[in-house]
Amino acid sequence: MKGRMKAAILYKPFDMRLEEMEIPEIGPNEVLVKIQAVGICGSDIHFYKTGRCGTFVVKEPLVLGHESAGEIVEVGENVTNVKKGDRVAIEPGFPCGRCYFCKIGKYNLCPNVKFYGAPPIHGAFREYAPADAAFVYKLPPNLSYEEGALIEPLAVGMQGVRRCNLEDGSVIAVFGCGPVGLLTMQAAKASGAATAIAVDILDYRLEVAEKLGADHVVNAAKEDVSKKISSLTDGRGADVVFEVSGATKAFEDALRVVRPGGVIVQIGIFEAEEIPLRPALLIDKELDIRGVFRYANAYEPAIRLAAAGKVQLKPLITHTFPLDRIHEAFKVVMEKIGNPIKVIVKP
Amino acid sequence: MKGRMKAAILYKPFDMRLEEMEIPEIGPNEVLVKIQAVGICGSDIHFYKTGRCGTFVVKEPLVLGHESAGEIVEVGENVTNVKKGDRVAIEPGFPCGRCYFCKIGKYNLCPNVKFYGAPPIHGAFREYAPADAAFVYKLPPNLSYEEGALIEPLAVGMQGVRRCNLEDGSVIAVFGCGPVGLLTMQAAKASGAATAIAVDILDYRLEVAEKLGADHVVNAAKEDVSKKISSLTDGRGADVVFEVSGATKAFEDALRVVRPGGVIVQIGIFEAEEIPLRPALLIDKELDIRGVFRYANAYEPAIRLAAAGKVQLKPLITHTFPLDRIHEAFKVVMEKIGNPIKVIVKP
Amino acid sequence: MKGRMKAAILYKPFDMRLEEMEIPEIGPNEVLVKIQAVGICGSDIHFYKTGRCGTFVVKEPLVLGHESAGEIVEVGENVTNVKKGDRVAIEPGFPCGRCYFCKIGKYNLCPNVKFYGAPPIHGAFREYAPADAAFVYKLPPNLSYEEGALIEPLAVGMQGVRRCNLEDGSVIAVFGCGPVGLLTMQAAKASGAATAIAVDILDYRLEVAEKLGADHVVNAAKEDVSKKISSLTDGRGADVVFEVSGATKAFEDALRVVRPGGVIVQIGIFEAEEIPLRPALLIDKELDIRGVFRYANAYEPAIRLAAAGKVQLKPLITHTFPLDRIHEAFKVVMEKIGNPIKVIVKP
Amino acid sequence: MKGRMKAAILYKPFDMRLEEMEIPEIGPNEVLVKIQAVGICGSDIHFYKTGRCGTFVVKEPLVLGHESAGEIVEVGENVTNVKKGDRVAIEPGFPCGRCYFCKIGKYNLCPNVKFYGAPPIHGAFREYAPADAAFVYKLPPNLSYEEGALIEPLAVGMQGVRRCNLEDGSVIAVFGCGPVGLLTMQAAKASGAATAIAVDILDYRLEVAEKLGADHVVNAAKEDVSKKISSLTDGRGADVVFEVSGATKAFEDALRVVRPGGVIVQIGIFEAEEIPLRPALLIDKELDIRGVFRYANAYEPAIRLAAAGKVQLKPLITHTFPLDRIHEAFKVVMEKIGNPIKVIVKP
Repeated sequence: MKGRMKAAILYKPFDMRLEEMEIPEIGPNEVLVKIQAVGICGSDIHFYKTGRCGTFVVKEPLVLGHESAGEIVEVGENVTNVKKGDRVAIEPGFPCGRCYFCKIGKYNLCPNVKFYGAPPIHGAFREYAPADAAFVYKLPPNLSYEEGALIEPLAVGMQGVRRCNLEDGSVIAVFGCGPVGLLTMQAAKASGAATAIAVDILDYRLEVAEKLGADHVVNAAKEDVSKKISSLTDGRGADVVFEVSGATKAFEDALRVVRPGGVIVQIGIFEAEEIPLRPALLIDKELDIRGVFRYANAYEPAIRLAAAGKVQLKPLITHTFPLDRIHEAFKVVMEKIGNPIKVIVKP
Repeated sequence: MKGRMKAAILYKPFDMRLEEMEIPEIGPNEVLVKIQAVGICGSDIHFYKTGRCGTFVVKEPLVLGHESAGEIVEVGENVTNVKKGDRVAIEPGFPCGRCYFCKIGKYNLCPNVKFYGAPPIHGAFREYAPADAAFVYKLPPNLSYEEGALIEPLAVGMQGVRRCNLEDGSVIAVFGCGPVGLLTMQAAKASGAATAIAVDILDYRLEVAEKLGADHVVNAAKEDVSKKISSLTDGRGADVVFEVSGATKAFEDALRVVRPGGVIVQIGIFEAEEIPLRPALLIDKELDIRGVFRYANAYEPAIRLAAAGKVQLKPLITHTFPLDRIHEAFKVVMEKIGNPIKVIVKP
Repeated sequence: MKGRMKAAILYKPFDMRLEEMEIPEIGPNEVLVKIQAVGICGSDIHFYKTGRCGTFVVKEPLVLGHESAGEIVEVGENVTNVKKGDRVAIEPGFPCGRCYFCKIGKYNLCPNVKFYGAPPIHGAFREYAPADAAFVYKLPPNLSYEEGALIEPLAVGMQGVRRCNLEDGSVIAVFGCGPVGLLTMQAAKASGAATAIAVDILDYRLEVAEKLGADHVVNAAKEDVSKKISSLTDGRGADVVFEVSGATKAFEDALRVVRPGGVIVQIGIFEAEEIPLRPALLIDKELDIRGVFRYANAYEPAIRLAAAGKVQLKPLITHTFPLDRIHEAFKVVMEKIGNPIKVIVKP
Repeated sequence: MKGRMKAAILYKPFDMRLEEMEIPEIGPNEVLVKIQAVGICGSDIHFYKTGRCGTFVVKEPLVLGHESAGEIVEVGENVTNVKKGDRVAIEPGFPCGRCYFCKIGKYNLCPNVKFYGAPPIHGAFREYAPADAAFVYKLPPNLSYEEGALIEPLAVGMQGVRRCNLEDGSVIAVFGCGPVGLLTMQAAKASGAATAIAVDILDYRLEVAEKLGADHVVNAAKEDVSKKISSLTDGRGADVVFEVSGATKAFEDALRVVRPGGVIVQIGIFEAEEIPLRPALLIDKELDIRGVFRYANAYEPAIRLAAAGKVQLKPLITHTFPLDRIHEAFKVVMEKIGNPIKVIVKP
């Protein structure tokens, strides 16, 4: 498809411009997707505010956005799994398929991955984006494009659940009730957790957590998390703690409240370069601390769980903006205007 | 507690007598339970009709029944985890705690286990029964004794789910929709299965399956199971098949309909001493076939899932009889009178 | 590289001709390998004798051979992991890298795989063969080409070992001491098995097994396998049985001699379309039966184990023939002339 | 057995007295062992120097020592697995067999465990000690009592190996080459590691590591561990790092040198109450950090590996003292006199 399209291009911190660019050409194994919904993620905000995120630095003008869904408008010559007109969620990382990590099925660790909105790969805040056909997944009729965009943070939560081999009937705690925390909690409950304890410092988020299935909520700014979880679990502690907040204090609490033999799944990104770890807890309780980096093989089951109604996506979508008002959308997220959970941009 | 009590004692096939016997004495680590509800299991029927079940043979008069719940009326001197008056579900096998299998946590394989209703250990069709205190589990207020009795078959289902490391978002098939099949299906859905396909040859059971969450039902007497499941899964097959029927044909189908790299969990007991296995399917699809024998460490999480409403037990209870009418209760099960699913005896 | 080369081409059963064919062209991700050593596998013999193997049928003239190693003489434009002159073992299946199975790391189940010597893909009984660069692995200096060819059957054994999560200190039994059985046994011992019991019906193979580390050998034609293994394991049984013989009787024995909670790894290919399975053993002992189909991610560690001397390959090579004498080589395997274990053809 | 015996009793730091005490009586499930060899462990030294170790505090006079083997001189009335005269290694922790952790097979986490030399349970630096019969293991004829005592630290190493599901062909690094480190390295190599990199700051320990199978040794006081391991692994990093040193710097290095998707097994005990953790490495490399606390179900396989010659124990024993000279033995360990690895006391 030839022509030009609108895109939100980040030039430098706080300098994102709505401009026109060429509609990209696609290769034989790719599809072109007319983007219909893109979620704003914390990492987008990082890039927007600082021009960097983790080890990534924006050097050339960059289109952000990696939580996306849309309609296929063109398919490459080798593509057979989807066709023009299909509604799809886009898994935003396209691994090489040939390296050690791809071959063992942990393609999230592929060093050659091309990931939407991670420099120098353009993301989805534009009208059309190319995608590897093996990484787009049909949306069933009962999932909207907005919900399709939320498959991405749900996939992060499912990666977390898979990283801890969650046993059915488990008691879990989730630290941090932003979008990923809320989706991790739901993924865990859908995957067998019998009891979920949600922890945050903002009451409006805890209210959403409760609506989405939290059995207990704890405001860490008002209560002693460690004591509360101990009392809720007859002193044994949580089988698994999903740390999604990236707060140093939360990580410390996690080691305290997890039961002996339990698992801490670290999903949240820390500002701090170093955080303190109490090794006596790690060893005496024979704990596991497991990091989560993106996801692999999670999109397909995530869509199935959402389509089956076992995970609710709609209640997370608090705000929607057209592409023209993307600056406003970013502002809502950054300044937490109107108790945002997930803000969606619709090109 | 001294005194005498009523019990249903099997002398020989079809000769089960309601008689009085001594209330048993308990040891220091035991509790005495006033039995309030006992489910009738297929193995009870086997013993009743033939005097044997598998390798077990009734040589001395025997009280059957192992799906039970009741109230604690006496505790041994070392017991601290429960107290008089507690409402409990009884895990009916008491392993030795000291052998190789107990030490590795697979106490269901303990060769020294004492199991209710397996000769020569008396079961629960009586007013009082002794139990190892480490194997009784408090029922939360929202679970009745009848539901407490059903924790036993639910534990079988959960053992099945744990034996296949069920991944969230999986597509599963359950062959056989008796009580264990229905509970296995629910346990699997509660543990992350997104889609459940229930198979049976009796429509009334499939109707119950549908009410309890089956996404698709297949009557194997009327439809080609293999074709149906293939079409329901876009040709890929089910991720896991729980074979709970014990029908040779079902086992054959299981190998056909499971996807490459998938798992067949064999729960159903076969009449046949030998069944045919197609090795080309086992190898070319690199399948796993995994047997299930009772359960270990499943009662506590089973109660949690049931209490959380993630597994429904009540809809399975179709008939209830007092101990005096136990013969009638057995007849209902044997002759499938009134579309029975689970029949409960209340001493 | 342009030109013509010699190849052994199978036209129909027993009609394999040494002819000239074009040296194949390679794609940008491929390498051209000058084949230096090719092992003869049981499946090659099947094709040779019957024109088919399992579900594969030879319809067009076909070059057999998939256990191979050689020297890289040309590399495609995208290739960076190897270079001209490198000595490599060739993993003979080239999966698509994009399907469900490839993405989860089980690329051995890829339905689009191109596998040497499986119709219609030509194999390695020729002077030059093309290979996907991601599936050739450098041989360290202390491994010869002949040993490099044996990495293939070793990879099968390692897949077996990985399929059973072999615990260190285990007692294992191997049924069938052909090349794959002997390599499976060595892989298991290198991976933590403390005690290996080798079973076969040919004494000369058991002698090789003993040289390669079998702690006990049992001739199934002369001894009662079940009783012998029981006595060797103090009545408990083997933790894992690797069934590599494809004999119905061996499969029956496997279920008998494996300990409760143990695993049977089925590697051997059966002539019989159906074999009898005793379900009571599967269930009462809560066994796992796990099929093995080729291998995934096994070449690299296989080479490391062989290079480290933890698995011996050389003692398996009993015969070597030049490509011109390939008919003789096949005859030696088919008629077991001179107690062959592995016969190598050197183009 | 009635009578009195000699014992080394710790009264307070540096005040350990050789005194007489009653030979202990045994219960029906216990055995009395005439202690023949006891290793001195780092935790014994801790108690000796400070009167405490971790959360344990010596309040009453205490016999230390938990790495022991001896001859059974008396058996309780229920004991059937061993008999008088048997030579055994003693697993020094006797769990309750009835709690949640015992039931799931992680009896090392049993809160009711009685552990030799952990207050208030007397250990093995005495002539006779009682032991739970389920936790003594027969020594095969080719293992001496001294080697039997070393089964304990080997069991720690095997617990480490099991905690990381070590894959065959792996590249591992061991940080810290004291007795546990050297045994962990050997256990890992016996369990499938193809390449072991040993790291320490003392050359004499690295020499022992090399003799026991280390493929590469790195003196962390002289070389950059991170660079060295990177170069030894073609830049990929080690599949697993066993951190056995308890040095803060080593823990930091561990996160750097482990490959993406790899595992750090934390065995070493830290002096520091808090150590710094770089969360970016944990997450971006999607690492696992797994603590090790003692061991469960490791003695039997440890004895099998040692008896099979796959792990060498003898080369670790550098010094042996009679019970009368226990003070000297402790001094050798504390002051590293004569390059000690493991010092054995023989009552």
